Amino acid sequence: MRPSKRAPDQMRSVKIERNVSNHAEGSCMISFGNTRVLCTASVETNLPPWRRGQGLGWVTAEYGMLPRSTGQRMRREATAGKQSGRTQEIQRLIGRSLRAVIDMQALGENQITVDCDVIEADGGTRTASITGAFIAMADAIAWMKERELVGENVIRDHLAAISCGVYQGTPVLDLDYDEDSAAETDANFVMTGAGKFVEIQGTAEEAPFSADELLSLIGLAQKGIGELVDMQKRVLNGETI
Amino acid sequence: MRPSKRAPDQMRSVKIERNVSNHAEGSCMISFGNTRVLCTASVETNLPPWRRGQGLGWVTAEYGMLPRSTGQRMRREATAGKQSGRTQEIQRLIGRSLRAVIDMQALGENQITVDCDVIEADGGTRTASITGAFIAMADAIAWMKERELVGENVIRDHLAAISCGVYQGTPVLDLDYDEDSAAETDANFVMTGAGKFVEIQGTAEEAPFSADELLSLIGLAQKGIGELVDMQKRVLNGETI
Amino acid sequence: MRPSKRAPDQMRSVKIERNVSNHAEGSCMISFGNTRVLCTASVETNLPPWRRGQGLGWVTAEYGMLPRSTGQRMRREATAGKQSGRTQEIQRLIGRSLRAVIDMQALGENQITVDCDVIEADGGTRTASITGAFIAMADAIAWMKERELVGENVIRDHLAAISCGVYQGTPVLDLDYDEDSAAETDANFVMTGAGKFVEIQGTAEEAPFSADELLSLIGLAQKGIGELVDMQKRVLNGETI
Amino acid sequence: MRPSKRAPDQMRSVKIERNVSNHAEGSCMISFGNTRVLCTASVETNLPPWRRGQGLGWVTAEYGMLPRSTGQRMRREATAGKQSGRTQEIQRLIGRSLRAVIDMQALGENQITVDCDVIEADGGTRTASITGAFIAMADAIAWMKERELVGENVIRDHLAAISCGVYQGTPVLDLDYDEDSAAETDANFVMTGAGKFVEIQGTAEEAPFSADELLSLIGLAQKGIGELVDMQKRVLNGETI
Amino acid sequence: MRPSKRAPDQMRSVKIERNVSNHAEGSCMISFGNTRVLCTASVETNLPPWRRGQGLGWVTAEYGMLPRSTGQRMRREATAGKQSGRTQEIQRLIGRSLRAVIDMQALGENQITVDCDVIEADGGTRTASITGAFIAMADAIAWMKERELVGENVIRDHLAAISCGVYQGTPVLDLDYDEDSAAETDANFVMTGAGKFVEIQGTAEEAPFSADELLSLIGLAQKGIGELVDMQKRVLNGETI
Amino acid sequence: MRPSKRAPDQMRSVKIERNVSNHAEGSCMISFGNTRVLCTASVETNLPPWRRGQGLGWVTAEYGMLPRSTGQRMRREATAGKQSGRTQEIQRLIGRSLRAVIDMQALGENQITVDCDVIEADGGTRTASITGAFIAMADAIAWMKERELVGENVIRDHLAAISCGVYQGTPVLDLDYDEDSAAETDANFVMTGAGKFVEIQGTAEEAPFSADELLSLIGLAQKGIGELVDMQKRVLNGETI
Repeated sequence: MRPSKRAPDQMRSVKIERNVSNHAEGSCMISFGNTRVLCTASVETNLPPWRRGQGLGWVTAEYGMLPRSTGQRMRREATAGKQSGRTQEIQRLIGRSLRAVIDMQALGENQITVDCDVIEADGGTRTASITGAFIAMADAIAWMKERELVGENVIRDHLAAISCGVYQGTPVLDLDYDEDSAAETDANFVMTGAGKFVEIQGTAEEAPFSADELLSLIGLAQKGIGELVDMQKRVLNGETI
Repeated sequence: MRPSKRAPDQMRSVKIERNVSNHAEGSCMISFGNTRVLCTASVETNLPPWRRGQGLGWVTAEYGMLPRSTGQRMRREATAGKQSGRTQEIQRLIGRSLRAVIDMQALGENQITVDCDVIEADGGTRTASITGAFIAMADAIAWMKERELVGENVIRDHLAAISCGVYQGTPVLDLDYDEDSAAETDANFVMTGAGKFVEIQGTAEEAPFSADELLSLIGLAQKGIGELVDMQKRVLNGETI
Repeated sequence: MRPSKRAPDQMRSVKIERNVSNHAEGSCMISFGNTRVLCTASVETNLPPWRRGQGLGWVTAEYGMLPRSTGQRMRREATAGKQSGRTQEIQRLIGRSLRAVIDMQALGENQITVDCDVIEADGGTRTASITGAFIAMADAIAWMKERELVGENVIRDHLAAISCGVYQGTPVLDLDYDEDSAAETDANFVMTGAGKFVEIQGTAEEAPFSADELLSLIGLAQKGIGELVDMQKRVLNGETI
Repeated sequence: MRPSKRAPDQMRSVKIERNVSNHAEGSCMISFGNTRVLCTASVETNLPPWRRGQGLGWVTAEYGMLPRSTGQRMRREATAGKQSGRTQEIQRLIGRSLRAVIDMQALGENQITVDCDVIEADGGTRTASITGAFIAMADAIAWMKERELVGENVIRDHLAAISCGVYQGTPVLDLDYDEDSAAETDANFVMTGAGKFVEIQGTAEEAPFSADELLSLIGLAQKGIGELVDMQKRVLNGETI
Repeated sequence: MRPSKRAPDQMRSVKIERNVSNHAEGSCMISFGNTRVLCTASVETNLPPWRRGQGLGWVTAEYGMLPRSTGQRMRREATAGKQSGRTQEIQRLIGRSLRAVIDMQALGENQITVDCDVIEADGGTRTASITGAFIAMADAIAWMKERELVGENVIRDHLAAISCGVYQGTPVLDLDYDEDSAAETDANFVMTGAGKFVEIQGTAEEAPFSADELLSLIGLAQKGIGELVDMQKRVLNGETI
Repeated sequence: MRPSKRAPDQMRSVKIERNVSNHAEGSCMISFGNTRVLCTASVETNLPPWRRGQGLGWVTAEYGMLPRSTGQRMRREATAGKQSGRTQEIQRLIGRSLRAVIDMQALGENQITVDCDVIEADGGTRTASITGAFIAMADAIAWMKERELVGENVIRDHLAAISCGVYQGTPVLDLDYDEDSAAETDANFVMTGAGKFVEIQGTAEEAPFSADELLSLIGLAQKGIGELVDMQKRVLNGETI
């Protein structure tokens, strides 16, 4: 029995609210249960130096947690003077994932920076970040299209992410904080709308896992990401979810 | 004529929503027009070393802006590796102001850290932060009182803050970003419920100001802070504003 | 009774010695009682990148305290790896104040950097720094004028600064360290030769202050700064004070 | 055809030389083809503060590349003033993997720090590091056992790692630098002697990958890690390979 | 012919003014020609952790240059966020030299920190620093003796330093900035009152030097340091030089 | 009697293995007894900005110790976030020494960076580094000559370094760690093939040293460096030593 009473393959309630920022070219607030992440996409015409002059664009991401997004107040990274290894790992993952669905030639010599700031954390902040970052990025690209800064087909496919894990011997979908802290295995999947894999990261927290368990987790992820992509499509069509 | 069509002594619409965090002992989202700041107060039983063993508490504050809270994306301070001089100046101001209305003996050997994170910026982020931080701190102290961690009268008085400035020759109350960028003089006032001053910071941006102008600004601040303290009282009484 | 036996509106003995550096284009050693600050102004033809190509100059300042300028040795900021929030706050104040009396167009695309290094501290280091920095800057501009690097009227007015405070219930002028540590309220004023305000920073250290107290402090500051500007004029005329 | 002419499921020549350090309690030089990593395991009786008093040990790892281990000289991280995100990601992976096969209770309140320093890089440095780190750690634990600092069964199982990828449409084992730079997909697997998974990290570099491709990579990893574990056993039995 | 018209074995005019700080337990301003260094010695009863509990004291030094002590303004190290390699090298040298003439057992568990801050630089700042630091340290130890914090004989011998160099083929004593910039060889000597060596650092700037040249430099240093030690003795006896 | 039973003027066994790196333009592994240093020389066509456009080349060096190159594991400098003062001192010494034997005009606008990484430390790491760095640099320059990037006579002379010290009252050559820790005096000499001095650094560790002792150390260094230069010549002629 999961602490949240959910069925093993049941995700938390997901909400995505678009256009939550007056300034950003694209933005959304995404919730996976009590986890809430503010995603803003900023369009810049200024590429990093190493990327210039090749006719290609760039997409990058930064991730942060507000100090009291967690049960215990965390030290502010700006005060500590550096981003933790975990933060860097996550923001590298978000950026890499977003780039996997972008046609850099179609984007032209523009940069999109997506900021994912965790307002409240209850497990799954990186997967909520990726799923929301895609919406913010899509809106920023629509903003560019309206201004004829880019043409069609900059985005090749949808992108969403979900965590799975083995909790008390059972493979389950979309771990919340209580499950995540106690899971034997924790895996994050990033997939496209077409059902292909962009990233898989599986870690044995308590005990190494078998090939069979891995296959179960893959199956759960395919189901969950299918649902997330459906939601993304409805949200981008203007539905409220 | 102000860009926002407001009368010279008219504040922007102010909203304060309490209890917006599942984790923090006290929290609110405060808006001064389009400026929105998330304030969370965290209770810690652990004092900084230099404060221990004196029977006194401590209140401190940290301030941050989300990278895209502004019209142009700002560099994330955690990435830059340090807080800017401006950030440090503001968070020192917030902490100093909050301490001015706390009876440290009544607080006992506890620390309250208030985080003020700017979600969206349109001028006046430091004054909104102080006004909201007071609400978050008050709720955290109420939380402590319920658990008998402190007694009565930890808070001596209300605390609120407002900016004033000379804009196109006219003293005006509560500058928004457009006014702030063009003001000849910019001043921030922090005052108590009893109408006493906790902090005054006035800066000639374009032209030095006269004693008469200063007196006008003081008058505007007294009016504005009076209104803010009224709102704080209604909000803490459970009204929705 | 003030610890120094001074009358409430009596400043400490002030001394300004010009041309104390063989290298700097302008320099002075300024003393407010036992507080001594070495101010050097360096002329550079190289503007910061964001300021270039506009036909405007720039004035900036840096502030530091020698480790044993204080009663207890302080940690050297170069060893600590960063300037404290207090240091940054003060050097931003000095720079902003100096800029308020400079005609940037008349200065042309030149930069003046004023370094204020506290040799010995006994309260009022920031106000002594501003008052001395003005002299060093004026001498550097005279140096430029001799070399026809600038024309007339780069400096619009004199600039000086003084602290005031409420000490044991009485408003007093020019706090020394003993008074500063015990003052209920501490305020710093930066004013021009014409008696206009450039900066006001008032802080309730022990108890919030009333509008009446504020007016008294303003009156003291006006008197003190008047005396300082007189001294500056005599010093720049070649008198020894 | 692979640039190295290897068959798709063929690893590079692997060498492990034990006891290459006079100082470290356990050490080896491991080569995967031209990739060479020096692994040293240091036994310390001093645990990190958060781990003390629980009767449990700790294993951690650090990773570095010599500046000219690569084709172009890389900037030295000690000069840059920080470890890159990639370095932190890798050393966190090594440490997490090693901990998965250690009985922390059996280790007692001791810490083992394994340093993996890349002497020469030609792809696969993280998988060579993990495979070699296991040997160094095993020797350090044997050193402790001889001195009766620990009992039996500190190590629960073998641990080795290998990379796989999709190169020109074909799943291949153990990518060298030329393949790694051009691979469509790159995955790293960490597994135990019993054939269970400790970590999976798969990344679509050029194109998202299908479930079928993922299964092929898993199969290759199982074969490769089986061979590596066999070598580890022979090396720990005193054979020279 | 030296630019300063001095004879090859002639030092610049040396001045030492004691007790120039109100706060420091020992202090002096030392000049070697236009090079001026403020040396303050601070007595602390708090040893660094690694030195505690052995009945031994510690002497350490820090060195800094004011930004405009040089012909071109240098970047402030506190702003740069770190001390340069040169600064660290010099302060390590000063500390090591001072420790060579101290009986650490006689000093007891006390620390003396000597700060050498260059007010004006014209070559030879490190040797002036060492020579002045000895005076400041001696006065601090006298201060301790008066308070019976230490007994007799904490100081074993005098300590002074001088630079020599080969300038246009001629060995010369006490290089000023013009000579230092053009010297073929530059050497710094630290010696005791008894004429023994504490440090020798010789560097070929333009051309490697012969054993004969080295012997000439040693001879010059012996002469110069003899004179400096004489001055130190007179100064500590209360003479004004 | 030396701990190693060596005669006072006897060096440890020295080995130099060339071309140990697949990537570096020049490289060697050098051993002085148990001290082993990997030296790699990297040719870059990119000069530091301040050196450009003068028709002159540049040679620089960096130094590092692997964390477990020492008896106790040292903290990794990349983790600590900065190079220690000792590291900077040593790498500045190596670079300065190498530059003393290079004709910068003949090198042209190219840079050579020599990395000296200590694999195992047993005293004398800086002198082994300099001696090995010369070989790596010489091979990198030969590599450039083959590609006609430079002409003849870039290298003016050989360069080698050795330590000497006074150990239990006796001047001895080439201190190992046991001797170095206990020596009264420690000196490092860098000399050319022609027997001229490039650097001398002598430090009294326990007791100031006399002019006679200094002369003995100089004599030992001359002997030792003569032997090292002979070895360098044989190695560069292709002999294995």
